[in-house]
Amino acid sequence: MSIPKTQWAQVLERDDGKVVYKEIPVREPGPDEVLVNIKYSGVCHTDLHAVKGDWPLPRKLPLVGGHEGAGVVVAKGALATGIEVGDHAGVKWLNGSCLACEFCRKSDEPLCAEALLSGYTADGTFQQYCIAKAAHVSKIPKHVALDAIAPVLCAGVTVYKGLKESGARPGETVAIVGAGGGLGSLAQQYAKAMGLRIVAIDGGEEKRSMCEALGAEAYVDFTKSTDLVKDVQKATPDGLGPHAVLLVAVSELPFQQAAHYVRSRGTIVAIGLPANAFLKAPVFNTVVRMITIKGSYVGNRQDGDEAIDFFARGLIKAPFKTVPLSELGKVYELMEQGKIAGRYVLEMPH
Amino acid sequence: MSIPKTQWAQVLERDDGKVVYKEIPVREPGPDEVLVNIKYSGVCHTDLHAVKGDWPLPRKLPLVGGHEGAGVVVAKGALATGIEVGDHAGVKWLNGSCLACEFCRKSDEPLCAEALLSGYTADGTFQQYCIAKAAHVSKIPKHVALDAIAPVLCAGVTVYKGLKESGARPGETVAIVGAGGGLGSLAQQYAKAMGLRIVAIDGGEEKRSMCEALGAEAYVDFTKSTDLVKDVQKATPDGLGPHAVLLVAVSELPFQQAAHYVRSRGTIVAIGLPANAFLKAPVFNTVVRMITIKGSYVGNRQDGDEAIDFFARGLIKAPFKTVPLSELGKVYELMEQGKIAGRYVLEMPH
Amino acid sequence: MSIPKTQWAQVLERDDGKVVYKEIPVREPGPDEVLVNIKYSGVCHTDLHAVKGDWPLPRKLPLVGGHEGAGVVVAKGALATGIEVGDHAGVKWLNGSCLACEFCRKSDEPLCAEALLSGYTADGTFQQYCIAKAAHVSKIPKHVALDAIAPVLCAGVTVYKGLKESGARPGETVAIVGAGGGLGSLAQQYAKAMGLRIVAIDGGEEKRSMCEALGAEAYVDFTKSTDLVKDVQKATPDGLGPHAVLLVAVSELPFQQAAHYVRSRGTIVAIGLPANAFLKAPVFNTVVRMITIKGSYVGNRQDGDEAIDFFARGLIKAPFKTVPLSELGKVYELMEQGKIAGRYVLEMPH
Amino acid sequence: MSIPKTQWAQVLERDDGKVVYKEIPVREPGPDEVLVNIKYSGVCHTDLHAVKGDWPLPRKLPLVGGHEGAGVVVAKGALATGIEVGDHAGVKWLNGSCLACEFCRKSDEPLCAEALLSGYTADGTFQQYCIAKAAHVSKIPKHVALDAIAPVLCAGVTVYKGLKESGARPGETVAIVGAGGGLGSLAQQYAKAMGLRIVAIDGGEEKRSMCEALGAEAYVDFTKSTDLVKDVQKATPDGLGPHAVLLVAVSELPFQQAAHYVRSRGTIVAIGLPANAFLKAPVFNTVVRMITIKGSYVGNRQDGDEAIDFFARGLIKAPFKTVPLSELGKVYELMEQGKIAGRYVLEMPH
Repeated sequence: MSIPKTQWAQVLERDDGKVVYKEIPVREPGPDEVLVNIKYSGVCHTDLHAVKGDWPLPRKLPLVGGHEGAGVVVAKGALATGIEVGDHAGVKWLNGSCLACEFCRKSDEPLCAEALLSGYTADGTFQQYCIAKAAHVSKIPKHVALDAIAPVLCAGVTVYKGLKESGARPGETVAIVGAGGGLGSLAQQYAKAMGLRIVAIDGGEEKRSMCEALGAEAYVDFTKSTDLVKDVQKATPDGLGPHAVLLVAVSELPFQQAAHYVRSRGTIVAIGLPANAFLKAPVFNTVVRMITIKGSYVGNRQDGDEAIDFFARGLIKAPFKTVPLSELGKVYELMEQGKIAGRYVLEMPH
Repeated sequence: MSIPKTQWAQVLERDDGKVVYKEIPVREPGPDEVLVNIKYSGVCHTDLHAVKGDWPLPRKLPLVGGHEGAGVVVAKGALATGIEVGDHAGVKWLNGSCLACEFCRKSDEPLCAEALLSGYTADGTFQQYCIAKAAHVSKIPKHVALDAIAPVLCAGVTVYKGLKESGARPGETVAIVGAGGGLGSLAQQYAKAMGLRIVAIDGGEEKRSMCEALGAEAYVDFTKSTDLVKDVQKATPDGLGPHAVLLVAVSELPFQQAAHYVRSRGTIVAIGLPANAFLKAPVFNTVVRMITIKGSYVGNRQDGDEAIDFFARGLIKAPFKTVPLSELGKVYELMEQGKIAGRYVLEMPH
Repeated sequence: MSIPKTQWAQVLERDDGKVVYKEIPVREPGPDEVLVNIKYSGVCHTDLHAVKGDWPLPRKLPLVGGHEGAGVVVAKGALATGIEVGDHAGVKWLNGSCLACEFCRKSDEPLCAEALLSGYTADGTFQQYCIAKAAHVSKIPKHVALDAIAPVLCAGVTVYKGLKESGARPGETVAIVGAGGGLGSLAQQYAKAMGLRIVAIDGGEEKRSMCEALGAEAYVDFTKSTDLVKDVQKATPDGLGPHAVLLVAVSELPFQQAAHYVRSRGTIVAIGLPANAFLKAPVFNTVVRMITIKGSYVGNRQDGDEAIDFFARGLIKAPFKTVPLSELGKVYELMEQGKIAGRYVLEMPH
Repeated sequence: MSIPKTQWAQVLERDDGKVVYKEIPVREPGPDEVLVNIKYSGVCHTDLHAVKGDWPLPRKLPLVGGHEGAGVVVAKGALATGIEVGDHAGVKWLNGSCLACEFCRKSDEPLCAEALLSGYTADGTFQQYCIAKAAHVSKIPKHVALDAIAPVLCAGVTVYKGLKESGARPGETVAIVGAGGGLGSLAQQYAKAMGLRIVAIDGGEEKRSMCEALGAEAYVDFTKSTDLVKDVQKATPDGLGPHAVLLVAVSELPFQQAAHYVRSRGTIVAIGLPANAFLKAPVFNTVVRMITIKGSYVGNRQDGDEAIDFFARGLIKAPFKTVPLSELGKVYELMEQGKIAGRYVLEMPH
């Protein structure tokens, strides 16, 4: 494989909220890195946060965004193990971590203080050739379509991790708040593949149909319910409420409701990172019902491999629309207008 | 042992916030119950809540309060197993539960919807002869002083349970907020006996001395600290913050501080039941640091036995002051004025 | 409902290995008991052990065997909670336990030293009216066929418990040794419903077809394999061996093979109780690969409810053949000759 | 610090069971490695196995043995993070691992198929300058004596890991078989620091005194007991047997005894690697008592840091005798004769 000296990329050059489609140099991988020829990259809300710079976390500038990249390994450093040139690989939010601190030692690489974040503190997947730490890329089986898996690399892994963190066991019920959205529909499919029973919470009849088709045993329409807490509890087989709640887009009201309808001893898992939102729950209720509230961030490397494996087995479908890398700006516009259903996937130029 | 027909008790007769010291009948135990001749009973803040009726949970009336009673089994029903007349026994907050529902089946008796609460929905330990379900009283080894163990039966068990729920393992650090109070000093002793390292958080030099004597490795004085979050983190061996936080008296500010200084992947356990308080934490921080927030209620039966065992081994000391049962009213007055350090224990008339 | 004074039963009258079909009195339930009008009862290998008396555990005599009974509650004692006359209920191996010892307090009722065993130390389900502790019978939803669920009450619960004990998580692979037998086919169905992937191990082409139909991803035929260890490992997606092994009929060779093909850090669960068999594994291999070996007995009450719930959702089918209670002797004969495929279910006379 | 070109080392040159004290070159660290100037190294039974070549695991030749080395980092590669030149560091059995395979991703580095083993598949600590992967050396606080900590780096970590694997919680009882030996005495100290209660099992009055001094609550002398199973159970507070058993030198008889005296639901942990030994337990007993049997190998990196931390806090003392590196051959002789009590530590020439 011959690797060019330059490549096309989408670059945020300064703090002006605008990405520029341009040619930039291709980097060479260091000893513990690989170079991945990205074929497709998903676009995630986080990418928009990076462009807007509205998170309490500084980002690199100039910046190539993107952290849901699927492609082919074209070069690797001398110390890269477990991955070969020619392997299909995914570049995820965690571009690298130190692998030596307490968090890395305990398999919590996402909490590493030295973690490199693709498309945020390291150049990401909105370019043809992306660098990542060899130990952090995910191998993708060759029979898996690289466009279809792209959104799984962040969205899929994140909801899968959230479900694992919930502690819900096969046969137990999980309520998914925002079940009809992009993350929610992935969460439903993972939940079902994990043997969980689903109460889907969202608004409108279209989402009801979609959730029922994905296997939800009950659908609670928050636009119609006059007593959401009661309705969710009634929707569980024994009326005691779901064993776990997955909040895929945390905001204050749904969170407080969850604290009331979750089963005693149950767990509420918050994923998603709205700016300035707060979790708030009454002490009395939380204590006497022994409720657990958890934040779940992205998955670690093992979670990533497991989430990919469920996908590779054909158990997960994520609807997506493909556009060329050059159209990233338009995707951001639609995203900002809230006009995106499903995921956009960028195709790199060949 | 001859059992009298009547006995002395402190009775809340109506919703007027006043207890009356009077003679009432002695009940006979049902088939699955025991009758315990109470020798001593601790007085807990919860008893005051029961008298005032300010919790969102209805109570029995007329009511004999009290749920930290230690005494001798004097009668038992035909189905009572594992306990004999003559055994020393403790009557705790959980007077009984159905032992058949999902929560009871999973050893979470405190969450049973049919749970009987001593001194709240069932007559409690401020009387000479108290009824409790045989399966729920705790056996007390005969070498253990019945006055000294009384406060352990609620306060001790509760902090021990909270420490278990925190998930902190031997060698890890737990911050105890309110370490110098009654619950806090018990919590420190249990923590030490469990191999945990302690950062004590409280106010004033007197409490510092007390905490250091109890084995705290560090003391953070919230009345002097100008940056509590930073000071608590610095007080942990590696500066990353405590693995767990035990909030023995939850209020909003300490809770929010805890969400900032707890180590990433750490757990904040709220015990204590202030009326109308809320847990509140920023979503972003909770998610990207994967923090867990948990309410911990009283222990189950096994927790009770374990907490008593630590005490029986001489590892826990709870300072207390003994007064006759007739003086309960005065104890409530002092409690309301915030004038109690340590625990009051009532001695029953002989 | 009128309850007769006498009823038909199969009784082992003395230690002669023979059951007698005769009329015996109907007992009245004690305060914490229920009387169940048994409609159907499965016949389990354990019943044959009880008749033969070849286990290192003494049994009651005279004895009514049986511990997979499904029927209708027709009477209950005053203390029986959570169950009503008219409810459908299952009587399982655990007829009762003290609910107060350490094991009961920790939800391990099967380990209670006072446990009553249906059809072994207490009269069981080979009679029309069976007594059991109210807290130990399992409620059965009314839409569930009582003949079909009977074998689930022991065989189903036991394999479900074994799978839980294995610690295997959804997406992981479990090898089932004896997958084509009665327990094995139930185990495969539970495993699939729990999101597990299955490597079925058994002998012959007929069993291959059956296992593949039940959802096994791979079948290893021990009658044809020349290197079983290697073949099982190759049958797992990454070649590292199954995360767990369920041995539904433990004998020495399969056990030792399992210790070699299970994945490092994996778990081998032994269920089934052959007389005089031993687990044997090389220390070096067990230590450097950190293998766990576990015995799993019958489920606790919660496991029972969960296993029934999977069945009630239509996820489990157990093939069975129905004969009248009077023909129990013939069933034992077939069992002894090893001529039973699937489960025999006895129908009680009306 | 100036690093010499050559150094003194003990080298096994061929498969003849003899080490040669000679000068060899000092290697330079690769990009992900550090060079540690070893000051002291413990000598472990494993080193003798390496010399004799009697394990079913091939070793490097020529070989510098040793895997309990404590010293100072004198050089590091460009990718080495979390460790600096001048830091005190320990080189352990795990010299390196891939940090990318499933086992490494799950914090089970000792199970990595690419693991480098110090003094076995990689040159170890019986030399003045030893290479190890930067991510695998353990930082040692500067106030800790480097001779005293050396034996902790393998023996201490291993028993600490075994205790963690046992699942025993503070307040529970662990039986330690071989409690009076080198590993056993370390195990007792770790157990005590972890809040566990100890039943020490060993032979003779001298060991009794030693065990009692280390904090064992009971001592069972296998040379005097006529019913070891009964005596161990009686030695536990409630007579039900220890919650866990740590077998520090596994052989068949003690293992089988442990399977009988361990508490139901308890765990037996085997550490130590005698050649050709087998674990053997009766199926019936293992199943109906739900016993878990586990092999525990060396600790992972986090276990190593935790074990060191307990030592650094002054909670662990390991008696040792210091001799010069040149005398390794004599140490092996004593070891082979079974004449070593406590640990030998080699001092490197300055």
